[in-house]
Amino acid sequence: MNTNEKIDVIRHWMKAVNICAVVIPSDDPHGSEYVAEHWQARKWITGFSGSAGTAVVTLEHAILWTDFRYYIQAEKQISDSLFELLRTGEPKVPTFQKWLADTLKPGDTIGIDGNVFSMANVKKIVAEVETRGLLLNTKIDFIKELWKDRPTRPKSQAFPLSETYAGKSRGEKIKEIRKQMDVFGASHHLVATLDDIAWTLNLRGQDVHTNPVNIAFVLIAPEKIFLFVSKEKINDALAAELNQDGIDIFEYEDIYTVLHQIQDDTIILVDPENTNYRLFESFNKKCKIVEAPNPAIALKTIKNDIEIAHLRKTLVKDGVAVVNFLFWLEHQSEDEPVTELMAADTLYGFRKKQELFVDNSFDPIMAFQDHSAMCHYSSTKQTDVTIGNQGMFLTDSGGNYLTGTTDITRTIFRGEPPKQTTTDYTLVLKGHIAVATTPFPKGTKGFQVDTLSRQHLWKQGMDFGHGTGHGVGFFLCVHEGPARISPHPVDVSLEQGMVLTNEPGVYRENDYGIRLENMILVAHAFENEFGIFMKFETLTYCHFERELMDPELLSIDEKEWINDYHAVVYEKLSPRLDKNVASWLREKTRPI
Amino acid sequence: MNTNEKIDVIRHWMKAVNICAVVIPSDDPHGSEYVAEHWQARKWITGFSGSAGTAVVTLEHAILWTDFRYYIQAEKQISDSLFELLRTGEPKVPTFQKWLADTLKPGDTIGIDGNVFSMANVKKIVAEVETRGLLLNTKIDFIKELWKDRPTRPKSQAFPLSETYAGKSRGEKIKEIRKQMDVFGASHHLVATLDDIAWTLNLRGQDVHTNPVNIAFVLIAPEKIFLFVSKEKINDALAAELNQDGIDIFEYEDIYTVLHQIQDDTIILVDPENTNYRLFESFNKKCKIVEAPNPAIALKTIKNDIEIAHLRKTLVKDGVAVVNFLFWLEHQSEDEPVTELMAADTLYGFRKKQELFVDNSFDPIMAFQDHSAMCHYSSTKQTDVTIGNQGMFLTDSGGNYLTGTTDITRTIFRGEPPKQTTTDYTLVLKGHIAVATTPFPKGTKGFQVDTLSRQHLWKQGMDFGHGTGHGVGFFLCVHEGPARISPHPVDVSLEQGMVLTNEPGVYRENDYGIRLENMILVAHAFENEFGIFMKFETLTYCHFERELMDPELLSIDEKEWINDYHAVVYEKLSPRLDKNVASWLREKTRPI
Repeated sequence: MNTNEKIDVIRHWMKAVNICAVVIPSDDPHGSEYVAEHWQARKWITGFSGSAGTAVVTLEHAILWTDFRYYIQAEKQISDSLFELLRTGEPKVPTFQKWLADTLKPGDTIGIDGNVFSMANVKKIVAEVETRGLLLNTKIDFIKELWKDRPTRPKSQAFPLSETYAGKSRGEKIKEIRKQMDVFGASHHLVATLDDIAWTLNLRGQDVHTNPVNIAFVLIAPEKIFLFVSKEKINDALAAELNQDGIDIFEYEDIYTVLHQIQDDTIILVDPENTNYRLFESFNKKCKIVEAPNPAIALKTIKNDIEIAHLRKTLVKDGVAVVNFLFWLEHQSEDEPVTELMAADTLYGFRKKQELFVDNSFDPIMAFQDHSAMCHYSSTKQTDVTIGNQGMFLTDSGGNYLTGTTDITRTIFRGEPPKQTTTDYTLVLKGHIAVATTPFPKGTKGFQVDTLSRQHLWKQGMDFGHGTGHGVGFFLCVHEGPARISPHPVDVSLEQGMVLTNEPGVYRENDYGIRLENMILVAHAFENEFGIFMKFETLTYCHFERELMDPELLSIDEKEWINDYHAVVYEKLSPRLDKNVASWLREKTRPI
Repeated sequence: MNTNEKIDVIRHWMKAVNICAVVIPSDDPHGSEYVAEHWQARKWITGFSGSAGTAVVTLEHAILWTDFRYYIQAEKQISDSLFELLRTGEPKVPTFQKWLADTLKPGDTIGIDGNVFSMANVKKIVAEVETRGLLLNTKIDFIKELWKDRPTRPKSQAFPLSETYAGKSRGEKIKEIRKQMDVFGASHHLVATLDDIAWTLNLRGQDVHTNPVNIAFVLIAPEKIFLFVSKEKINDALAAELNQDGIDIFEYEDIYTVLHQIQDDTIILVDPENTNYRLFESFNKKCKIVEAPNPAIALKTIKNDIEIAHLRKTLVKDGVAVVNFLFWLEHQSEDEPVTELMAADTLYGFRKKQELFVDNSFDPIMAFQDHSAMCHYSSTKQTDVTIGNQGMFLTDSGGNYLTGTTDITRTIFRGEPPKQTTTDYTLVLKGHIAVATTPFPKGTKGFQVDTLSRQHLWKQGMDFGHGTGHGVGFFLCVHEGPARISPHPVDVSLEQGMVLTNEPGVYRENDYGIRLENMILVAHAFENEFGIFMKFETLTYCHFERELMDPELLSIDEKEWINDYHAVVYEKLSPRLDKNVASWLREKTRPI
């Protein structure tokens, strides 16, 4: 079926069941950022393969919403179909909720699959459409019927993450969660988010591309923990280990019956942002739901001492891989041209040689010249180009190791850099250094720190369109909440033990982009009459480009930071590098 | 009656009407920051005279909540009474809402006067207490019965602010508001906030100490505007002028009847944050209320070109007054010691000499030595001290002129400054300069800019506990929303025409404080491939203290800004100063 045939089939079905509009989001039942193929219904229907977007089909219209990252790609991919693009973020473009409210007539029914909408998102739809007399049916699942060649639910084997790496046992983590449940008087707590489950149970898997998680639900009850997961994913040894910790395994689909059968008057802690609507609807109606964020979110974001110790070592290994890669790239002869995809494979090879490496933590960005100007570029066979001998090259990549998750970006210039390039590079680096070096009072939030990375660019009339940094999981998702460093005001203080990225950039459209990213750890700095101060400690080891720095634009303190950092990079990495790479790194890390 | 006798009388009354708790806030029916004596019931009952606090009386308890600014003062003022202090902001101190929920028994009734609680605040109480089975009676007004010597409602004469100063006619302003009402389909709009009314109708008064407003309500209807105000405040000429503009005058108390009589099905725009509960309850129940912020809030914050032109001139006059004051203070002989209160009178005298001056825009802060360490200090007869010849002196003051409102802080050192003083002063000044000079992308919000003023202090382990700046009205309130520069994330972009303050500081407890405050205007800076950039333009003219600057800590750019600013200060003010003052100012503004 092509896209238009799919639209026809959907409309035929809509007429039969008296539904006037269906909404197909990009989500799975677990609120994941990266979604397994099984749930990529929006991609299946529209043909648009970007990670974010919402489709709506009515009897008259077929609309796709997506954001600025995907305008061009989406236009191209839906051009042969009836789908029209609405550009989220552009002036006067309504949200899909508002569009539905304005387009449908009182009495019309909107159909959604409650499996793939969080409770909070359903509330947003209701808020917009209820005053217009529209009805909402949250129980439609036409995808199941219509998507004939749908990939099955992922079935990778689950495996335990040893306490040696995790630093805390399942038992301890569950105890901490139960303590938070007690605050709300809740005896039960439902967890639907895959990274929270992985963290709580010290379990990992390979169900989602580059995300080491298992598709599962967890219900924490007073006497036992229910783990809902395809039983074939759990081998006998693991099942025995889990049972020993009070965890009983149920089939994934059993969750609905179990929720329905919870005893009357039970108080259950549920996170409306992170629990799908179908689950909410499945609870015994005589239970009391207390709405609050999953306790695991605030617990897992504070890395424990063992995790931090592992992560420090992991970042040495990761630095070795990246430095080997940069050395290799600089030494490619012109006779054997390297493309972006080849570069990605080579870097993967260098990481794979490192102990306890499991997989990439996301699809690496290898971006030459104008590709680097698109901050979310990802090479495909269609876009792949040779990395030439003159121009900007940006590489953003990371690994998942049993001992932690990494994320690093470096930008290099192939050939002789023009003046504007060195100015831009230096201004981005100044922002990076400001974040890396400025202590801040305990209680400071990410949005307060964000400006430190922008001010030098602002002074020269520049800025960048993404946040300065995001949280990073421990052998988990490379984007982890709740804290972030961004102009978006998230009300979460930066606390000791949080791991984030520091990645300012600058992007000149159709020309080039620069981004400089290290991982950073929130640490105690000092205490005095003004209170406790925190600081960021840089965790990543890899040199920056001396040749791209304009010393005229750097203060004495900034030069000192670069020299100190470079000394540490050389000291940590050189013992693990081949001699010729080590002496190359010595050159790269010479004091400026 | 002393405080305990008042508590007795209240409890007697509570028993008679079956009320278990009464809540007495610090608010008037208009949500004002500064409240006329008539509504200072919390002060009357508790004896505590600070500006912020809430009292609760039950049959067993009498509790006062106030924040850190007033802990010491409140303890002192309630020490002879049954009132206990709960320190808002300290760990584990419940809000009064939570305290009521935890203390009372299901079925108990809480009494409040709906006149002095906004709709939004009533919702907050309900959210906390309804699940506990508590009842809320919003119609009690025991204050009226019990407060025998209550001051009457203020009755200052209202007067028009000429369009020459306001820059826009009433008609234009009302047209702009009606345009916003149309967006919500509202034909009617109720305004209860005094500064919004003053701005909309180009009316001023003297009903609230240092705030040039009238106690009034306004109802904008399609055919006419209802102004509810004590008729004695409006003379015949003004009444005729208002009538001409379609404004009919009604008695203040008539509002309730008029709201009740609005035609069925009318759509009325009402701001739940800025409209008291009694007004909400008074609407004809068959009308439809649309809740949204008062349109006047967003309109009045963008100063028009005529207002800005007036303000620029006003700030020259205000600078003349402050420089004359600082000259006078420096030249006081030791034989005639000056106290803080005397200094306040003298500065008032210098301002009064300026054209079109009306009054102070707030009670001036004149703070010597450890007094300057308290950022909300205000001298009283009890606290007044002589301004000695050795020590820090901080002066924060402002004027209301027909041509604008001013706010300025300067800190000087009497005698030979110690090293720590010059370091602190220079770090605060560096933050001030960072705000004054850094351009920022259009759309940037105050909380993003706030960090610019703190970073240099953070680096040395210091910070300050207030925002960097607040909005300022035009011949109106010295604190004006909605924009502010503060770590508190207010979702309002800094737009061209907004007038704010730039006032970083640092406070060493029991020792001294420093604050450096200028007024700033948001202006267009430039446009390039990265978009439109805005900047702040400094409006205030008054020198900073060269002797307190440590040139070692200042960058070349910072010194250049100081020298340029000082040159402009001298150029603008010297023609209006006596010769000896002008030559003193020339010394003070010499390049560094």
